Amino acid sequence: MCEKLNDRFLKACRRQPVDMTPVWFMRQAGRYLPEYRVIREKHDIISICKNSELCAKISSLPVEILGVDAAIVFADIMLPLEGMNVRFEIKEGIGPVINEPIRSLQSVNALRHLDPKADVPFVMSAIQQTRKRLQGRAALIGFCGAPFTLASYLIEGRPTRDFKNTKALMYRDPETWDLLMKKLASAMTSYLEAQIDAGADAVQLFDSWVGCLNSQDYDQYVLPYSRMIFKELEKTNVPLIHFGTGTSNLLENMKQAGGDVFGVDWRIPIDLAWQRLGHDVAIQGNLDPTVLLANFNLIQSRAADILKRANGMPGHIFNLGHGMLPETQPANVIELVKYVHDSTRKQRSE
Amino acid sequence: MCEKLNDRFLKACRRQPVDMTPVWFMRQAGRYLPEYRVIREKHDIISICKNSELCAKISSLPVEILGVDAAIVFADIMLPLEGMNVRFEIKEGIGPVINEPIRSLQSVNALRHLDPKADVPFVMSAIQQTRKRLQGRAALIGFCGAPFTLASYLIEGRPTRDFKNTKALMYRDPETWDLLMKKLASAMTSYLEAQIDAGADAVQLFDSWVGCLNSQDYDQYVLPYSRMIFKELEKTNVPLIHFGTGTSNLLENMKQAGGDVFGVDWRIPIDLAWQRLGHDVAIQGNLDPTVLLANFNLIQSRAADILKRANGMPGHIFNLGHGMLPETQPANVIELVKYVHDSTRKQRSE
Repeated sequence: MCEKLNDRFLKACRRQPVDMTPVWFMRQAGRYLPEYRVIREKHDIISICKNSELCAKISSLPVEILGVDAAIVFADIMLPLEGMNVRFEIKEGIGPVINEPIRSLQSVNALRHLDPKADVPFVMSAIQQTRKRLQGRAALIGFCGAPFTLASYLIEGRPTRDFKNTKALMYRDPETWDLLMKKLASAMTSYLEAQIDAGADAVQLFDSWVGCLNSQDYDQYVLPYSRMIFKELEKTNVPLIHFGTGTSNLLENMKQAGGDVFGVDWRIPIDLAWQRLGHDVAIQGNLDPTVLLANFNLIQSRAADILKRANGMPGHIFNLGHGMLPETQPANVIELVKYVHDSTRKQRSE
Repeated sequence: MCEKLNDRFLKACRRQPVDMTPVWFMRQAGRYLPEYRVIREKHDIISICKNSELCAKISSLPVEILGVDAAIVFADIMLPLEGMNVRFEIKEGIGPVINEPIRSLQSVNALRHLDPKADVPFVMSAIQQTRKRLQGRAALIGFCGAPFTLASYLIEGRPTRDFKNTKALMYRDPETWDLLMKKLASAMTSYLEAQIDAGADAVQLFDSWVGCLNSQDYDQYVLPYSRMIFKELEKTNVPLIHFGTGTSNLLENMKQAGGDVFGVDWRIPIDLAWQRLGHDVAIQGNLDPTVLLANFNLIQSRAADILKRANGMPGHIFNLGHGMLPETQPANVIELVKYVHDSTRKQRSE
């Protein structure tokens, strides 16, 4: 009665040959799924995250509904910051809003050390319960925000387009920046270690907004801190995914920071990104999530283009370039997963 | 009594040798200038734009205060849309907000043909008056929004980060998209022609948000329409500046669309951008505007890096990668203009 273990995703992370290209999607367990919306009507996001059973149910939905090869634990990158003494709200249609943005040495000093097992025990128990629920049908991914992306939320206080307060602090007060980034790097290291201990098969570092920097800034103000996390995590032998958007000019630099798999967005052709990164790492991506709002002909032609560029080389994980949009039709996503699986299986047996 | 004509900027646009690198800044006549804030206390942005005398005064301020080599007429990219029957507001801290976003063939059909001299006569008279005021001390740049960037405001109804409604329309309803883009291209062509007739020495097409697309989308949904504008404008022999942000993967494509000068942001090193574009075009940029929030040591070192990369080749215009931020200290900007002028003058006399 035991289903065959699905190790397609983990094999691809390690650039081993697979029977077909593995697929998962960022925000695959989100508002576009009616099954999720039913739950959200009764619970806010933070309450769901703190309810491990509900959280495991939601995290597993995409495996059951879409047939993806990996689940990602349902959580928000801001969650562990609560344990560091940051008070925030997730505002509908806006995102995380912090009432007292962190812009001084004093407020960085006030950030507490994170003790993941005491401060965010519900994430670890959600991971344990999701694993049980999945029964090996898909890998389970843990995650956290990267220091730069978390710092940008803490400093701006809300989503931004120009990151001016973040960059101003970084340029004007490098000591405060250094302390903030070190605290975040240390907290995220222990947070990911705890997720791995709890059973995460792989972890993804979301540096979603790092593409607002040039490579000079990245090397000076970001790389050392992301590197701290990867350096510690490398000891676990769990695949490490390093993700960002708009990173066309940062790929070589991000590789220096670390990671086994690099998540890239649609702005760069995936073959060019992989060539720039080198084929000694795996690559994840890179369909524009807005393409999923089109009819299936267009979705299929864009997916086909990505698969053609990835050229069946071991180490490609099919994903979006950023999170699924709430307006996405689940039927399109189901068909896309089937298309990626079927067309890559066919390709290898030819 | 007549000052020497300053043709440094126009010569650089044509890649002719100059005595020192010309400088101007996007949003150089903006909220960071106390002289501008005094005027803004009594007038909203649209009223200023419709008052040619005030507008000429504001447009000339940066030449008088900063010593830049080009002025740009004070206007908003949304202005001509009013003549096309679009009602919008410029909301403080947000940007242009359109009460009835354009998302259907019907609403595109309702867009009127623009007659610049009848619909936006104040822009042309502001250009005439600014020229008089400048008396040849600096070149005068006219501008407009590019079809894609204007379409994104019209379709989203407000500034966005994901451009999902824009892309959804583009993917799902290519006929409506085509009609909208053609109408915008035709309107912007006549708008720029009218600005040139009124005395603009050069014009800039702002495709500020086009970097959200990959090159495939750019070629299909944007290039033909931007090309229409450049093709007509090339007949005027006035230098044409083609600007966007986050365009690292679109440079070759944007060049196909047209332009004599390409504006690039800080995300790509300017020498790499120039190499990718080819040295048969001029280049403008590319300091991160947030660097201006730092102390002058950092500003100078970043400016020096740009000048070093541009390597004194004819055809570099020093500018930011995007608009000046309201928090900028004018003293830093004055010092930066002096630094760029002095260090490039020195370089050439060595």
